[in-house]
Amino acid sequence: MADSRPIGVFDSGLGGLTVVKALRSTLPHESIVYFGDTARVPYGNKSKELVSEFSMEIVDFLIKYDVKMIVVACNTVSAQVLDELHEHSTVPVIGVIHAGAEEAVKATNNNHIGIIGTMATISSKAYEKALSNLDKKIQTSSQACPLLVPLAEEGWLEGDVAETVVQHYVKPLNANGIDTLILGCTHYPLLKDVISRQVNKGTTLIDSADAVAGAVKKRLSAAGQMNDASAKSLLTCFITDIPLHFERVGQRFLGAPMDHVQTVHDI
Amino acid sequence: MADSRPIGVFDSGLGGLTVVKALRSTLPHESIVYFGDTARVPYGNKSKELVSEFSMEIVDFLIKYDVKMIVVACNTVSAQVLDELHEHSTVPVIGVIHAGAEEAVKATNNNHIGIIGTMATISSKAYEKALSNLDKKIQTSSQACPLLVPLAEEGWLEGDVAETVVQHYVKPLNANGIDTLILGCTHYPLLKDVISRQVNKGTTLIDSADAVAGAVKKRLSAAGQMNDASAKSLLTCFITDIPLHFERVGQRFLGAPMDHVQTVHDI
Repeated sequence: MADSRPIGVFDSGLGGLTVVKALRSTLPHESIVYFGDTARVPYGNKSKELVSEFSMEIVDFLIKYDVKMIVVACNTVSAQVLDELHEHSTVPVIGVIHAGAEEAVKATNNNHIGIIGTMATISSKAYEKALSNLDKKIQTSSQACPLLVPLAEEGWLEGDVAETVVQHYVKPLNANGIDTLILGCTHYPLLKDVISRQVNKGTTLIDSADAVAGAVKKRLSAAGQMNDASAKSLLTCFITDIPLHFERVGQRFLGAPMDHVQTVHDI
Repeated sequence: MADSRPIGVFDSGLGGLTVVKALRSTLPHESIVYFGDTARVPYGNKSKELVSEFSMEIVDFLIKYDVKMIVVACNTVSAQVLDELHEHSTVPVIGVIHAGAEEAVKATNNNHIGIIGTMATISSKAYEKALSNLDKKIQTSSQACPLLVPLAEEGWLEGDVAETVVQHYVKPLNANGIDTLILGCTHYPLLKDVISRQVNKGTTLIDSADAVAGAVKKRLSAAGQMNDASAKSLLTCFITDIPLHFERVGQRFLGAPMDHVQTVHDI
């Protein structure tokens, strides 16, 4: 029997809409409830305790909307508190980190994988741990890139500034000889073009949004929880604040206009 | 009689420590209670309603510590909700905007003043209004610079990236023929060197931290509220979260190690 319950997706802000975009492309018949914590974004430089507290609140919120699964689109949350969320949640929780790591291991030939992400994601060494659990032979090189989120939100997706900033960040990774690079932050798919120009030729870029969409499909399919293939899907977005230029930024990440947006004050 | 009560200073994060630094240099005998809302930083792209709510909470918090005056080090708050804070507070409130505007009017020769700041500060047109209230002849050119805060926090205060980003932002201001530039964000004093290299030769930079420190001194002096000149001053810092690399970033803004830091969970 088809399971028509929606998939819950959350992120610290609007960046997770890149995951929604990938999910809608991979699973066009699934409804989605998105939660973006725009009043408290970014999580990337907050303490683990605070990230944990915020995430638990959001999981409880999504469960009230009868979601069948929760996708943690936020790399910072996936990196720091996924285990706690697994324990806390009554429905399965899938994070972006494991999915991205699996794709990267499949893609690498020389077993040297690079990771770029926020300060919090990189400091947590979550990708390194996930990669090492999958294959002990994997070598890693990682780089925190605090300027890439504002760059993506500013919409500077090409040009001098984008090239210079990205070049600065990937230079040591290129020198270390990686052949695969995980884009370990929901904002980075927007900068894929400039990143692909700046990495060594032949480097495979792993988009964690695509990776997690694939993982969700596999999981739903295995559990017999896919929605009916004739079903019309719905996207509902909850945000905790209406930030400036919200619609333009949201549309940039989602690749489509945002409908059905509601603001939540106390979660 | 000397007034030994401390001065309250607040900001959305740690950037306001540049104002504390200027205050300590201008008023070495005044004690300061600083509040940095590091759990909810940045305010720059949040809605006015939310910025107002957060600011009222902080004003109430500072008043409990018996401050004699409150300095709003945050440009976003000063730009958007200063009038509400004036009404709400039982002690005088001074914002960075008016002080910076006054200094700029004194400095300009051709009556054309440039302003750089966060998206929220620039969108609010608060500097334009303050400048026009001071002198109707003043012409303005303004530019939102969302990348400068992460640049300052990252510590990229010189080099290719800083030069390219700053050049991009000040280019239209240079072309418009400004002779004075207001650094309308507490983070920007850290980038003063690169900014001064990129603006047209002879452009005067107005550091709003210095400007507000001067305004506070004038106000306290006029009200007979200066502390005793032999008094030893104390700096107490409250923050709502201990962010990553907090000490390094804090020290960069304050220009000295941060002592007496306490974390506040519910304000």
